[in-house]
Amino acid sequence: MTQVRKVEVTDVGPRDGLQAEKRLIPAAEKIALINRLIDAGVPRIEATSFVSPKAVPQLADAAEVMAGIDRSKGAIIATLVPNGRGAIRAAECGVDEMVVFVSASESHNKKNVNRSVEESLKGFEEVAKIAGDAKIPVHGAIATAFGCPFEGNVAPERLAMIAKRFQDMGFVGMTFGDTTGMATPPTVRAGVAAVREAAPKLTMGLHFHNTRGIGLANVMVGLDEGIDKYESSFGGTGGCPFAPGATGNICTEDLVYLLHEMGIETGIDLRKLMAIGCDVETVVGHPLPGQVMKAGQRLDLHDMDAVRTAEG
Amino acid sequence: MTQVRKVEVTDVGPRDGLQAEKRLIPAAEKIALINRLIDAGVPRIEATSFVSPKAVPQLADAAEVMAGIDRSKGAIIATLVPNGRGAIRAAECGVDEMVVFVSASESHNKKNVNRSVEESLKGFEEVAKIAGDAKIPVHGAIATAFGCPFEGNVAPERLAMIAKRFQDMGFVGMTFGDTTGMATPPTVRAGVAAVREAAPKLTMGLHFHNTRGIGLANVMVGLDEGIDKYESSFGGTGGCPFAPGATGNICTEDLVYLLHEMGIETGIDLRKLMAIGCDVETVVGHPLPGQVMKAGQRLDLHDMDAVRTAEG
Repeated sequence: MTQVRKVEVTDVGPRDGLQAEKRLIPAAEKIALINRLIDAGVPRIEATSFVSPKAVPQLADAAEVMAGIDRSKGAIIATLVPNGRGAIRAAECGVDEMVVFVSASESHNKKNVNRSVEESLKGFEEVAKIAGDAKIPVHGAIATAFGCPFEGNVAPERLAMIAKRFQDMGFVGMTFGDTTGMATPPTVRAGVAAVREAAPKLTMGLHFHNTRGIGLANVMVGLDEGIDKYESSFGGTGGCPFAPGATGNICTEDLVYLLHEMGIETGIDLRKLMAIGCDVETVVGHPLPGQVMKAGQRLDLHDMDAVRTAEG
Repeated sequence: MTQVRKVEVTDVGPRDGLQAEKRLIPAAEKIALINRLIDAGVPRIEATSFVSPKAVPQLADAAEVMAGIDRSKGAIIATLVPNGRGAIRAAECGVDEMVVFVSASESHNKKNVNRSVEESLKGFEEVAKIAGDAKIPVHGAIATAFGCPFEGNVAPERLAMIAKRFQDMGFVGMTFGDTTGMATPPTVRAGVAAVREAAPKLTMGLHFHNTRGIGLANVMVGLDEGIDKYESSFGGTGGCPFAPGATGNICTEDLVYLLHEMGIETGIDLRKLMAIGCDVETVVGHPLPGQVMKAGQRLDLHDMDAVRTAEG
């Protein structure tokens, strides 16, 4: 089913996960979690976003967070940058990679950043220049890549068009953002095929949300398509602004568990990751959807006398 | 990836799901839910178990539940039977199918039914005779098929041995029971291959739990192996006796959503199923892990003005 032998997992929890939390989480707590992810061997982390502090107060501490991260171990520290101003701040902080983002659908992009898709793409040229001068690679993320909560289906041609523009601007990679969990096996296959043809120089990554419970099923499809980069969040933090009670990003611990059980390398220490997931629950102050951190790995055996089993 | 075009979904919620609940759920409420599943087009339902009322008080109303089920629409009503006495009661109630169960591992079988695996298998001969006389087909379920919480890995040869015995007793089908959510892509492939070779006359079904978050990823593997029978529970009821807070069976609504999105027929009305899932939350009195019932289907669109989106 898959030829993929090694996967690069990006933990987007510090940004995509914590950003949705009501409690304003102090920079020191974010830094501690990020450094523990690095210690656990997570190879790439989306640490923060250099967005306007007014727009997202939870991320106003971007520079402070960057300053506290342990850069000695080689983990790639990526950050979102919405525009040129953000790119300047990110470059000053010495990020390893900048990630720009645009929605595939006009209405979501309008709602999210109050621009047309074309305006967003044009704006990335300034980011590309700043990043180029600082010798920092740029990735492009396409939000609502597999469906828009306002418009519905997204044509694969749309993804191809945007990815081609990314490639033309000299970006190194692109990520399909399944912003509200609308990805399905056929939409993943169609999107990957379209981008692969339109922008063959870009690396491709998949960023799934588990909003409808099928996030890891979509990972299976991605693996079958040969994709070796996945984004997830510690504990399954995230949530969905459209569905109270729905889960957010796919959970890093559950993803890594699945990959390891399939014999796919990640370089990550799952035990350490599970401990982080549990502690993220404490940081956010409510239960998180991650499962492996609650149930343990499959060969964490139990004492026969300590439990009463259910029938069948 | 899959050639499967049509899947038979069995909702085991009324038995496997509700059995784990603390609140003693009145028969009338179970009957109402089962009849709504039938109305939603669920083709097969594990309605109850003719186990000793002392062992599982939640299922003491098996005969009463059976009497209230709408049998006019052709849904297959299957029930667990632990032994000859249960088989007699099930036959009296006119069940469509009997399901016997034995664990793959000795320690789990001992804990669950206080017998050796061989004693369980021997006991099934009496069930087979009673069922044969009543012209009721028998299925065999293998609990802990993909791992035992006390012993760890289960050798595929064990599954092959038990399935062969099922076939020799004239059973029509077998189910792999992932009792505590230890199934993984490689264990599913190995188990299916072993049983396919040892007992080629049996139909094969997969009963997954989502204890470690990868239940639907395992369904993708099953589909890739050509398996077209899956068991799940409404709302994702079930739980795990070993892991407080862990989820139970894979959720029927989420499974059906995945299958439909892949173009696989189930004959089920997903809207009706989602409404049932929501009402099961009320019946059990606590939140359930099902996602689609909370988030809606992917093309259930939202009003742009009604929500504030998250960045990226």
